[in-house]
Amino acid sequence: MSNKVETVAILGLGLIGGSLAKALRASGFCQRILGYGHREPSLRRGLELGVIDAFTLDLEEAITTADILVICTPTLVAEQVLREVLPRTQAMVRPPVITDAASVKGNLYAAAVAVCGEFPPYLVLGHPIAGSERSGVDAAKADLYVNHRVILTPASENDPGALELVRNMWLATGAEVVDMEVARHDAVLASTSHLPHVLAYALVDSLAQSAESDEIFRCAAGGFRDFTRIASSDPVMWRDIAIANKSALLRAMDQFTDHLAQLRHAVATEDAQGMHDTFARAKTARDEFTAVLAQRSAGEEG
Amino acid sequence: MSNKVETVAILGLGLIGGSLAKALRASGFCQRILGYGHREPSLRRGLELGVIDAFTLDLEEAITTADILVICTPTLVAEQVLREVLPRTQAMVRPPVITDAASVKGNLYAAAVAVCGEFPPYLVLGHPIAGSERSGVDAAKADLYVNHRVILTPASENDPGALELVRNMWLATGAEVVDMEVARHDAVLASTSHLPHVLAYALVDSLAQSAESDEIFRCAAGGFRDFTRIASSDPVMWRDIAIANKSALLRAMDQFTDHLAQLRHAVATEDAQGMHDTFARAKTARDEFTAVLAQRSAGEEG
Repeated sequence: MSNKVETVAILGLGLIGGSLAKALRASGFCQRILGYGHREPSLRRGLELGVIDAFTLDLEEAITTADILVICTPTLVAEQVLREVLPRTQAMVRPPVITDAASVKGNLYAAAVAVCGEFPPYLVLGHPIAGSERSGVDAAKADLYVNHRVILTPASENDPGALELVRNMWLATGAEVVDMEVARHDAVLASTSHLPHVLAYALVDSLAQSAESDEIFRCAAGGFRDFTRIASSDPVMWRDIAIANKSALLRAMDQFTDHLAQLRHAVATEDAQGMHDTFARAKTARDEFTAVLAQRSAGEEG
Repeated sequence: MSNKVETVAILGLGLIGGSLAKALRASGFCQRILGYGHREPSLRRGLELGVIDAFTLDLEEAITTADILVICTPTLVAEQVLREVLPRTQAMVRPPVITDAASVKGNLYAAAVAVCGEFPPYLVLGHPIAGSERSGVDAAKADLYVNHRVILTPASENDPGALELVRNMWLATGAEVVDMEVARHDAVLASTSHLPHVLAYALVDSLAQSAESDEIFRCAAGGFRDFTRIASSDPVMWRDIAIANKSALLRAMDQFTDHLAQLRHAVATEDAQGMHDTFARAKTARDEFTAVLAQRSAGEEG
């Protein structure tokens, strides 16, 4: 592979892929952005909007043309796409560098090893911690990743050049790139993102099923609105994430449930000091977190 | 009691009491607002700011001067104040109408019956569902209650005139006033407010105590920020609410825990349909709730 990046192929042109395409075009990171997917209308729309330079419905063409292939589909679809792409690249003398943007990394790592026998050096798994309540290529924006974290999970088998290329690609979008082990990534994301989604869904569904649900929701206010905002997320996307990250999510759920049981005990026994300690520690940690997040940027989502 | 309201006494001049005072002055509901409390600087500040017309440090003076006494202290302090005020009003021929703004009603109802032998007809318990991240009389604003709900929990023993007076007072602030039974109020607020606070505190504290807490918080983003915003609330206030509303809170916690256990089972067994059903029902309920809330107003908190 030369140092000059000619073509980046985006597999799946939604908000994530479309925003990456826009950011890369704006930065001049590559000569050409090629869109690939199954749905021609969405790709055609991306061309009209100037998000991509060209598109193809032929996976073979995307693979043979691209210097970098970025899988930008939802979590479980990313695993399917990887299973389609890897067998076609294994025999290539100069396979494209492959990366992705899915929320869970362990299932992709396992799929790659299963397909190839060992982890392919040209596959660099990654996860941009960014999103929006909107979706689709029409919502794509060039600055979606500015000041947002992108976590790469390099494997020991990785070719350093491939890793560097993916890192440079994300840096070109304005993101902050950090490395993490696959298992660590999945555990951290289970705690900060997957578990909160599950808790918000469980709370709202639990209240919605109660006999007084109308009255309950009529009396809820801003605190409840913010707490449950993530329960308005796409059910299919989160079902798939829960499946893909099952082990880490279950561990995070169990850890939380244990902690909640301790707090329940403090409430039941009117242990004022115990409750206060928990609440005060949480407030301190949360205030510190907010201060750090505010330093980065506003309007992000994860 | 005459139809003309001369003096409203506010016991506790913080955000809630100060905003009520401002709103009542702006509306012309009464001739005079009298502030009462233990801390003279805060009362003097209220006078300087034009929030109140006068103040006293003498509870007896507040009780004998006021047509309406509004207890605007935090939850457990409200119970103490009620226990001080009620014995002094029981023998009065024309006791002031007494009401409050605390988050829990059952403990105040029980305290009133314990002090007086039966529920006093001139005590009307209430709860404005409003607040702000700021506190203190400097944060008080005349429109805090506009389009917000105020829940009154009238008792069968209540004098209809007293109830009407308290209702009119809140209507004068621009609030929407609804009636609810004491137990229902405490159950509904446990579900929509007290439980979410406990869950947010438990989650943040659980993560803060983990060995990887730094990495966890560094990777959290906007979804986590909104979900945990209420964990930045005052620990003392929420400790007291948890104590005051113990029974209803424990019931709400247990109902939630049961629901979460079902969801855990769905994750563990990869029950895609079960997860999707829960997430989709929650999304529908939450989207409906948001639409209703948006119709009311923005910027509220509870």
